[in-house]
Amino acid sequence: MKNLVGTCVFGQSGGPSSVINSSAAGVFIEALKQKNITAVYGAQHGIKGILDENFYDISKEDLNELWLLKNTPSSALGSVRYKLKDASVDDTDYKRILEVFKKYNVRYFFYNGGNDSMDTCNKISKYLLSSGYNCNIIGVPKTIDNDLYGTDHCPGYGSAAKYVATTMMELNLDATVYNSGQVTIVEIMGRNAGWLTAAASLASATGGEGADLIYLPELPFDIEKFLESVRNVTENSQGKCIVAVSEGIKDIDGRYIAETLATLSASKDNFGHTQLGGLAVSLANLVKNKLNCKVRAIEFSLMQRCAAHLASAVDVEEAFTAGQMAVKAACAGETDKMVVFVRDDSSSGVYKCVPTLIDVALAANTEKKVPLEWITPDGTWLKKEFIDYALPLIQGESKAPLENGLPRFARLAKILVPKI
Amino acid sequence: MKNLVGTCVFGQSGGPSSVINSSAAGVFIEALKQKNITAVYGAQHGIKGILDENFYDISKEDLNELWLLKNTPSSALGSVRYKLKDASVDDTDYKRILEVFKKYNVRYFFYNGGNDSMDTCNKISKYLLSSGYNCNIIGVPKTIDNDLYGTDHCPGYGSAAKYVATTMMELNLDATVYNSGQVTIVEIMGRNAGWLTAAASLASATGGEGADLIYLPELPFDIEKFLESVRNVTENSQGKCIVAVSEGIKDIDGRYIAETLATLSASKDNFGHTQLGGLAVSLANLVKNKLNCKVRAIEFSLMQRCAAHLASAVDVEEAFTAGQMAVKAACAGETDKMVVFVRDDSSSGVYKCVPTLIDVALAANTEKKVPLEWITPDGTWLKKEFIDYALPLIQGESKAPLENGLPRFARLAKILVPKI
Repeated sequence: MKNLVGTCVFGQSGGPSSVINSSAAGVFIEALKQKNITAVYGAQHGIKGILDENFYDISKEDLNELWLLKNTPSSALGSVRYKLKDASVDDTDYKRILEVFKKYNVRYFFYNGGNDSMDTCNKISKYLLSSGYNCNIIGVPKTIDNDLYGTDHCPGYGSAAKYVATTMMELNLDATVYNSGQVTIVEIMGRNAGWLTAAASLASATGGEGADLIYLPELPFDIEKFLESVRNVTENSQGKCIVAVSEGIKDIDGRYIAETLATLSASKDNFGHTQLGGLAVSLANLVKNKLNCKVRAIEFSLMQRCAAHLASAVDVEEAFTAGQMAVKAACAGETDKMVVFVRDDSSSGVYKCVPTLIDVALAANTEKKVPLEWITPDGTWLKKEFIDYALPLIQGESKAPLENGLPRFARLAKILVPKI
Repeated sequence: MKNLVGTCVFGQSGGPSSVINSSAAGVFIEALKQKNITAVYGAQHGIKGILDENFYDISKEDLNELWLLKNTPSSALGSVRYKLKDASVDDTDYKRILEVFKKYNVRYFFYNGGNDSMDTCNKISKYLLSSGYNCNIIGVPKTIDNDLYGTDHCPGYGSAAKYVATTMMELNLDATVYNSGQVTIVEIMGRNAGWLTAAASLASATGGEGADLIYLPELPFDIEKFLESVRNVTENSQGKCIVAVSEGIKDIDGRYIAETLATLSASKDNFGHTQLGGLAVSLANLVKNKLNCKVRAIEFSLMQRCAAHLASAVDVEEAFTAGQMAVKAACAGETDKMVVFVRDDSSSGVYKCVPTLIDVALAANTEKKVPLEWITPDGTWLKKEFIDYALPLIQGESKAPLENGLPRFARLAKILVPKI
């Protein structure tokens, strides 16, 4: 579908990251240059903004503010968790999207998100194609979970991993400061994939000190073995032990440890994911009762995904590039694709990743987990393969300029396009 | 007591901060230059290291590593929470300190900490004086709580305040990203003084956005009024509200809200302080039940005091200066004093603080709180007086060099002095 002429819409979906707006900057700045793109719209709250015809007119934004977006965390347009039904079950939303796209002559659609968002791209793409409406659709990957299939890694992961590694180093110095023992349990995001929790190993890999034990959801979590490992560490370190644990650890039967321990009635989000929380506190109580020692539970909470002041320069630049590339590819006629990064291992020792495209259907709803062979046999640490993989992704610094000692984030005018 | 010739001991006490080691760097680098100081010792775990004769020989450290201390968080020598009894009640520890000081010819003692540590300095100073043992003792102030009497502010506060303000800005962008309401409760350290929680106001003062409501322990906390305020904010902001709350908020009868809500049997530390925790979760549950809305509880936990990657340059430099000045003052014959900072308001608009000395007895066991007239009448925000006071303290950046994308913190050899 070459040479489409019309407007473009960009939307942000799912949990925010430090660099989702870097991709927005890439999309907007590139789209504003393209002669085939007649107007650049930002959808308010992702797909909801399309359904409700709430579009921000990006051409009305100050270009300097768009550049500041590159280092502004979270999702400037507003995000959404909204799962489209299969069109065969209920095509109401699809009809509406087609109607809106026709009305605003939307010929380019870019959607930034994780697996669910790539599924959304794919479903809309198929529906529009079957309706005979030409629109080039490219997915821009984003997730701190790093669990998207088909790409070496995801924009968002490097910065969150840098937060985890840096903070583990700082916490290690703090949590071991007294002349008495303390077991510190740090809970890190990741429902099914342990990429982010694994980043706790980077602290030690580079000569500093971070966690003593690391638990990923890729392997079943055995409470008795865990207590034994903590006991072993404390016996050799004056009672001190730091544990990094993924929120999504499960027992051998696939039951979340957080649920087992808290016996909470876990609520579920719109995608059917179980909403977790409180694992660190539950594990800390367990350790306290079983090992009779001082404990501290720490949750990195939202900070691990929005600490843009600690973003990785590699990540920020790649996120920007992914946005730019999506626009260039769509304008060159590509559709139903997702931008991915392929690592070039030809020059050993030097990190190089090349952006390219894959069919978005391949990424939709598939989760990429940490390879089991990258985890040590006892299941409490990561091997060199992981360090070699992840360390290049946290390099360099890129952050907002300071004003009065605080970050100067983008301030968008957010002028709504008049409804037609 | 001029011209004392002998060894010096430096110790670190109480909760760590991002800059307690900056003061250590100042003490060590200055002490190594002083001709009257025959050896420079670091006490392992503060006063405990003196009682146990565990001293690190600082002259054996690489000078580059001592400079790296300036940007290494926590307490490199190890900290301690140990309260000396009054000598009139039990002088065992004092006799031991005198014995150790005589044995190692300790003529200079520098102690870095908060109110309790200044009390320790004062008690030791009095005892040695009454025993006819000459030793110059200078306290170096440190506390993220900023509650030390007699100084404009404390080293440690500026960096923690910068963490709070920056992180509140980032959290604001993250916590308001969806098209649905959410009340976010952020718990910040501070038992009796709300200085650190008040720093949440700096985010908004500079054009960004942070908390909507701020609660300090200086004013009684009324649960009904709090719920009413949250309800008011959410009604005008699509259900979104961010609350910054000090861990130490109390009701009109002085009872900790955390205790009231959690009805937990609060444990106490060695100084008789009630150990708090879990306030954010308790308040979040309250809001959820009473206002029937989505909530999120966040605790800044240890990160707020050890995030050296986000330290304030003003704070780092002042902490270093405080250490240097303590040594210079002691070598010039001063004793039983604490280094303080006096703000010079003569040149309006330009921040300037001058280090000077006060009697350490003045600072011991006295808490300086946020002036009530700096808090808005409804008790949920800070006035311009606070912003003018605190904003200069979070300026500039000073952090460890990066190695492999992660901070290169000091690695001390920590060679113990052979026991005599």
